Amino acid sequence: MHIEVVSSVNEAREARLTQRTAIVIDVLRATSTIVTALEAGASGIVPVETVLEARALQRPGDVMAGERFCRKIAGFDLGNSPFEFTPDAVKDRRILLTTTNGTRALHKALRADSVLAGSLLNASACAKAAADLRRDVVILCAGSHDEFAIEDGLCAGLIIDRLQALGIPTETNDFGASMRGFYRDARPFLTETMLQGTTGRRLVKLGCAREIERCAQVDASEAVPRLQGDTLVLG
Amino acid sequence: MHIEVVSSVNEAREARLTQRTAIVIDVLRATSTIVTALEAGASGIVPVETVLEARALQRPGDVMAGERFCRKIAGFDLGNSPFEFTPDAVKDRRILLTTTNGTRALHKALRADSVLAGSLLNASACAKAAADLRRDVVILCAGSHDEFAIEDGLCAGLIIDRLQALGIPTETNDFGASMRGFYRDARPFLTETMLQGTTGRRLVKLGCAREIERCAQVDASEAVPRLQGDTLVLG
Repeated sequence: MHIEVVSSVNEAREARLTQRTAIVIDVLRATSTIVTALEAGASGIVPVETVLEARALQRPGDVMAGERFCRKIAGFDLGNSPFEFTPDAVKDRRILLTTTNGTRALHKALRADSVLAGSLLNASACAKAAADLRRDVVILCAGSHDEFAIEDGLCAGLIIDRLQALGIPTETNDFGASMRGFYRDARPFLTETMLQGTTGRRLVKLGCAREIERCAQVDASEAVPRLQGDTLVLG
Repeated sequence: MHIEVVSSVNEAREARLTQRTAIVIDVLRATSTIVTALEAGASGIVPVETVLEARALQRPGDVMAGERFCRKIAGFDLGNSPFEFTPDAVKDRRILLTTTNGTRALHKALRADSVLAGSLLNASACAKAAADLRRDVVILCAGSHDEFAIEDGLCAGLIIDRLQALGIPTETNDFGASMRGFYRDARPFLTETMLQGTTGRRLVKLGCAREIERCAQVDASEAVPRLQGDTLVLG
């Protein structure tokens, strides 16, 4: 299996996605939130790029969720914190979600054969699901404002590690190999590494350190969100 | 000291270079060759972007050197292998050098306050020289054909490690922090890591595995090439 890791959304070349499985990663926080919401019983999550688009798609009973600059969008039901996506808030409901980086990355990945949402929370389950699809893999790190984000790189390295632990012969591009090494070095202090990153520091300033700890819990979930049409559902 | 690591030439934004020290890295092979050539007594090295430009600048006694697709340019005196740059071949002579990625990266860095050439060979000396300049640092990985190259990332991580070993308080961008972790993981097997990278595999196919081993020798040199006008000299 060939695994290509792409460092941020703008680096993604759509031509390289065809006939591959795309794993989209936005650890802080979109894909961690998506995993949490589906595990909490949401019927599906529609990632949309703009607030206007979210409002246009809204049907009765939908949950409107998302952030800009790490803050909840005015008039929306929920922000982008995993803690908000409780069964009480989302069970059996459709969520329209728009975030700065994560939903853009999901849209960019649409050309792929299959699109999965990966995070530290579901790394092993996501690796297993990708392996079962028997395609080459592109891991698309959402990054932050067109820059590489350290927590997404950690997660890419972790997922490569898990794919290899399944006994699958893998080769990666140079960036993927460096992320695997980086993950191995940082494994004993994942939360600290995330807290020191650019997004981590911004979230701490906003009082969200607890969310980072939550998003750093490796393999806390078996949920593997997969895009079907325009909606992420449990695969 | 703030250290920003840029993953490949095309990611370099010139505005971020002003009032900073740029360390340009093209481990396989331009900056390793530049270090070797100056240590062998070359009077200076002019990095030029095109073959035509090199020919236009040529004066009697100059050494014409460079590669395209890892091979020596037809009619030139030398290619881009450190082994060719012996005192016999270059002592007291000026070298006009054009390579696919490294000389492009050096030109991109011109906006910086000072431009140093870094490699594994001179990592500690280069870190010391950068520290003495008392500016923030941009480490520009040349990469290969607009993609991140693993050997340049290793070297960026090593130079950050050396700067920190000097006791300098540093902060890095997310990419720099990941490269430092990657270097720490790969430290026991640098040559193997380089051999498995994209450029490494290409050089092995061309029979140049020995050159990779040579370029992987950490701190083999005290030479720190520095740009003065259009020419790299010992700083």
